[in-house]
Amino acid sequence: MELSTQGLPLSQRAMRANISPISWLLSKALEHPNMISLAAGFVDGGGLPSGPIARICAELLADGGRSMAALNYGTTAGSPLLRELLAEQLRKEGLSSAKPEDLIISNGGQQSLFTLTDATVDPGDIVLVEDPTYFVYLDVLRAAGARVIGVTTDEYGLVPEALEERLEELHQSGERHRLRLIYLMSYYTNPKGVNLPWERRKRIDEIVRAELERGDSFLVVEDAAYRELRLEGPDEPFLKSLDPENERIIVVGTFSKAFAPGLRLGWCMGPPWVLDRMARLKGNQDFGSSNFSQAIMAHAMQEGSSVDAAENFRSRYRSKRDALVNAMREFWPPEAQIIEPHGGLYAWASLPGIDTDPESEFFNRLFEKEVLYVPGKYCFCEETQGPRPKDSMRLSYGVASEELLREGARRMGEVIADMMP
Amino acid sequence: MELSTQGLPLSQRAMRANISPISWLLSKALEHPNMISLAAGFVDGGGLPSGPIARICAELLADGGRSMAALNYGTTAGSPLLRELLAEQLRKEGLSSAKPEDLIISNGGQQSLFTLTDATVDPGDIVLVEDPTYFVYLDVLRAAGARVIGVTTDEYGLVPEALEERLEELHQSGERHRLRLIYLMSYYTNPKGVNLPWERRKRIDEIVRAELERGDSFLVVEDAAYRELRLEGPDEPFLKSLDPENERIIVVGTFSKAFAPGLRLGWCMGPPWVLDRMARLKGNQDFGSSNFSQAIMAHAMQEGSSVDAAENFRSRYRSKRDALVNAMREFWPPEAQIIEPHGGLYAWASLPGIDTDPESEFFNRLFEKEVLYVPGKYCFCEETQGPRPKDSMRLSYGVASEELLREGARRMGEVIADMMP
Repeated sequence: MELSTQGLPLSQRAMRANISPISWLLSKALEHPNMISLAAGFVDGGGLPSGPIARICAELLADGGRSMAALNYGTTAGSPLLRELLAEQLRKEGLSSAKPEDLIISNGGQQSLFTLTDATVDPGDIVLVEDPTYFVYLDVLRAAGARVIGVTTDEYGLVPEALEERLEELHQSGERHRLRLIYLMSYYTNPKGVNLPWERRKRIDEIVRAELERGDSFLVVEDAAYRELRLEGPDEPFLKSLDPENERIIVVGTFSKAFAPGLRLGWCMGPPWVLDRMARLKGNQDFGSSNFSQAIMAHAMQEGSSVDAAENFRSRYRSKRDALVNAMREFWPPEAQIIEPHGGLYAWASLPGIDTDPESEFFNRLFEKEVLYVPGKYCFCEETQGPRPKDSMRLSYGVASEELLREGARRMGEVIADMMP
Repeated sequence: MELSTQGLPLSQRAMRANISPISWLLSKALEHPNMISLAAGFVDGGGLPSGPIARICAELLADGGRSMAALNYGTTAGSPLLRELLAEQLRKEGLSSAKPEDLIISNGGQQSLFTLTDATVDPGDIVLVEDPTYFVYLDVLRAAGARVIGVTTDEYGLVPEALEERLEELHQSGERHRLRLIYLMSYYTNPKGVNLPWERRKRIDEIVRAELERGDSFLVVEDAAYRELRLEGPDEPFLKSLDPENERIIVVGTFSKAFAPGLRLGWCMGPPWVLDRMARLKGNQDFGSSNFSQAIMAHAMQEGSSVDAAENFRSRYRSKRDALVNAMREFWPPEAQIIEPHGGLYAWASLPGIDTDPESEFFNRLFEKEVLYVPGKYCFCEETQGPRPKDSMRLSYGVASEELLREGARRMGEVIADMMP
């Protein structure tokens, strides 16, 4: 419900801020407790590391000095210990130049994305996003007043040639100087579940280098939220590993997907000039994420329980991914196009000839059968490259049990078979 | 150190964002480990409720369902249980209409202030602040591009007649329509340590009501951060209690000062039209504060340990306040004007004839004696009503021990006596 805001002292940003369409979906799910929700991208509650966190809290709070530090204020950019441990881990993972001072700890990866956007984007500035993309970030960009332009993806992620084409268009239209960010996910994307191959990473970085030589400065945003949820396949290095000078790529990560979202911690690593401004803005926002959460996370990294928790999640998601994908293969007509994910939380499907939009016949028939999905529509930006496909959807295997994933896919299959031309 | 930002893709807000002057002070303190810092407004580490939080964590994490909920994602506006408990407490404290849906849980009170500002203030909009005021909020307003206009305070807080005068000036200059917020602290202000008397609260609300009848809409921001730290004197109702219609005042509170800043939790309660937009913007920022912190805080409120922690802090601060104020009385010349605080964390002093600005002779001589204070300058806004006093300073008794508070005041007394005309 929209409240009338006429005559009220609201900012331009507030007037642009959407109620996220996903809220509408989630409220639908809450109203129907028997609904099989394949929509929410939450994590599997059964995989959360309650035991290790209980032990860590007990140890931490029994130690006077560490307890006092954890429960008091911290520093805006984040716990020095956590940043040291994270930098060490990132160096091992191929970001050889990672230093604690190049890192900011944020409230989930989300706050890094928000603060980065606030630090770089004025209304009318241009952001290129892989399309479809993480729809919550689309909301951030809309509220910021950005002009969001989509770059086509295929079953391997962002298409390098499509990026070149978009950049060329910006030169042609004289708008290239408004480009601020190129946003993409490098691991098991939300919503498509695809992992950007190493060759593409290199190609994209080449395009970016050449473009930076040619025109005004901009940043590449590598959202690596699902990196730790690799279920099989190649362990690609970060896109950021191609930027050892730390000058053109900012990588955003999270502790939510592979440890515990309730701690509300994420991070980013990027060039000093943007980190410096982001830290100032975070100083305005909250002068630091929960120091207690950060102390827990640092302790978990020191003792290795973060590694165990990630392995546990991977094992659970592997079974759940299999349950969902096998049921899709079993119950869906062969015309349905399914991208089988090798990591992350999502499977993407296209149903030739079926409109999957919210309030479509397909959506409503599934809603009656108590199955919920995220319509592809929510994931595409306004300026798609070519017409927006209307036949796609995102399915998540994060929350539902294997049994319900199978049952949800079975019910979907009935409606698809009935409706497919 | 300022990095060159020429040609870089930074937003207007990022370019306006300051490095807070207090960072400079705090880094000075860190470089000199023997420094007696009366500058930092941190809380007394010895008063932090480690024991209760350890017990709460153990109970919470041993309970499968609650543990899973606490460690997973929550809702953007905050834990329903915590908001229910807080609304109940606020109703008992005189906000008879407080409902959970009128509350947002934020990362400290700071994020409520930031988000409120982001939701209401565009560059060039006007914010009236009591002067001197909370300097971190001045940074938020500057980054937002607000025009910040000061309203004089005396030893009882914001002067109602000064507010009337400022409003009249805005009418005269034709700028009244740009007014968005009037910001004040109602309890033991930062930096002056004064508690706004009930008569003044009523008078201010009358002025606000009359002004809203006369012109465009704006909001009053009641920052009640130090409410729980009442050491003695009258227990004034919230300014917000004069707004049972919940239409013109937003009150901001925190769990940092009387429980544990490390949990990084605060809250606000205000009119639905602004809360609605703030929730959307918080959705962009981080879609919810730490769910684990919120579960701990709710548990603490249910079992009453939050009440005990607040009482413990009050008792400690009472002794520390006495130690500081008694030493000021003992060692300082009688010409020094001291506002003796009845709550909060700060004492404000004016030293007739002595310039207390950063890098002044007084500042430097005290720095050599290893005593640090917050120069009054940092707390005044650009547009003061009348000339800015240059002889004031803020002293905090939050962190230093009673012994060091006394020693700091003694060394100050030496320099004051030596320099006072």
